[in-house]
Amino acid sequence: MHLCYMGKKFLPLENASLPVTDLIIQRGVGVFDSIATHNRRPIRLTAHLERLERSALESGIRPPLTIEEMRSLALEGIDKMEMEYEVVIKPYITGGDSFDHSTGSFPSPRFFMIFQSVKKPFPESYQKGVSLHPIDTERIMPHAKTINYMISFTAQAEDLDSFEILYCPRGEITEASHSSFFLVRDGILVTAPLEKVLQGTTRELVMLLARENGISLEERCPSLSEIPYSQEAFLTGSIKEILPVVKIGEQNIGTGKPGPVTRKLREIYLDNIHRWLE
Amino acid sequence: MHLCYMGKKFLPLENASLPVTDLIIQRGVGVFDSIATHNRRPIRLTAHLERLERSALESGIRPPLTIEEMRSLALEGIDKMEMEYEVVIKPYITGGDSFDHSTGSFPSPRFFMIFQSVKKPFPESYQKGVSLHPIDTERIMPHAKTINYMISFTAQAEDLDSFEILYCPRGEITEASHSSFFLVRDGILVTAPLEKVLQGTTRELVMLLARENGISLEERCPSLSEIPYSQEAFLTGSIKEILPVVKIGEQNIGTGKPGPVTRKLREIYLDNIHRWLE
Repeated sequence: MHLCYMGKKFLPLENASLPVTDLIIQRGVGVFDSIATHNRRPIRLTAHLERLERSALESGIRPPLTIEEMRSLALEGIDKMEMEYEVVIKPYITGGDSFDHSTGSFPSPRFFMIFQSVKKPFPESYQKGVSLHPIDTERIMPHAKTINYMISFTAQAEDLDSFEILYCPRGEITEASHSSFFLVRDGILVTAPLEKVLQGTTRELVMLLARENGISLEERCPSLSEIPYSQEAFLTGSIKEILPVVKIGEQNIGTGKPGPVTRKLREIYLDNIHRWLE
Repeated sequence: MHLCYMGKKFLPLENASLPVTDLIIQRGVGVFDSIATHNRRPIRLTAHLERLERSALESGIRPPLTIEEMRSLALEGIDKMEMEYEVVIKPYITGGDSFDHSTGSFPSPRFFMIFQSVKKPFPESYQKGVSLHPIDTERIMPHAKTINYMISFTAQAEDLDSFEILYCPRGEITEASHSSFFLVRDGILVTAPLEKVLQGTTRELVMLLARENGISLEERCPSLSEIPYSQEAFLTGSIKEILPVVKIGEQNIGTGKPGPVTRKLREIYLDNIHRWLE
């Protein structure tokens, strides 16, 4: 059974609903985060909740719960889920029913937290790698994880074989719709700087592990035009971990197969994940 | 009392809610429209519902009701509202609970329609004109009226005296967050072409009335740099009708007061509105 914490109690997910007057429905005003468990313990829970708080504040929403309160509820919810599953926890903060024009803020936000079993990408995706669909657009408000994913659906419909869309404003690769993006060029990892993208929690772990393992890294936006000179690429995310990318639009990356740097990083990541369980 | 049509019945608005599993909440997947009444009869109802249908189809959502069905419900809902008010009708189509990756579409959309009393801008706004806050961003999916208005709130918070934000990608004025935009330069109306903006229903009426009354019009994006050479500007929208703009960011327009072309168009509009009541 899937659960939702809402209105001070845990409900079956299918019984949880929001008033249509909430601005998350009427005007897309809402932020969220997504946390996965490993051996039923959440990975970097506090870092995710801190990011949720930053997303809310950047959107003019004061979070109705403290990080410590959200943390306790997340742990309580995981305990209530059936034991055979890993869990994904999705806390949401909405704009609530009104916007105060005199202060530019949302005075009555709502909070809820969804608990579902994790659905990982298929094993085949890790073995063969995935393709991405590039679009010449930037993500609005890249530092906040808002709910505005509409274009990721409509653009993906243009390339049904793609795993996600890839934001490439003016040919500069920033991030994928649901993931951080890394290019591997001559053994060096290249990923967009934080000014341009969401602060990915798995992105940070990969950067740390690269440093610890002597793998060089450049923080700059990779360009679509340097794909022919690159050997590998991958996505990072809480649920997908490290997922090889073998194609962007019509361009193959390297041999068109997952490569050794991605494979090594994934092994190191899985060996180290225990360090970040809460 | 405000109403909501949902699940084949009319409810008090405060009793209407949506499951949190709907993608309009989880991922901002939803489109809507907004129709105002004049003497309790909706202005261009059919044109608005046709636009709603186009917004949905462009978003990969097949509308669950026909235009004729939505039209009947709109008229029925207006009749149920208390007589002393003009009504705003807001039909929404949501992404529903799932996205079908194999077809790039949303197989289980939901429909609801909100009925509220109209809140017009204050009379002072028409007398003195309003200011707009320009941002160097384009609206995502400009041909669809999606619910993604988040940036219009966060950007407005940067300039609390502004009435709306004005999308000005690379200095080219496209549209305001909730309205179409017209500049008046040497007696000629200038407004962005349909390739770049939402097909505003009041925008179309103003263009028709301009033609009928010998006022010239150019369909091109006005540039922020031509504001010093322009005399007037205004917004159009179903509820605000024609609203004078006297300032964009730090720049006054003309004398900084509403001008004669805007005033004349507003008079013509109010004299002709009876032609478009349904």
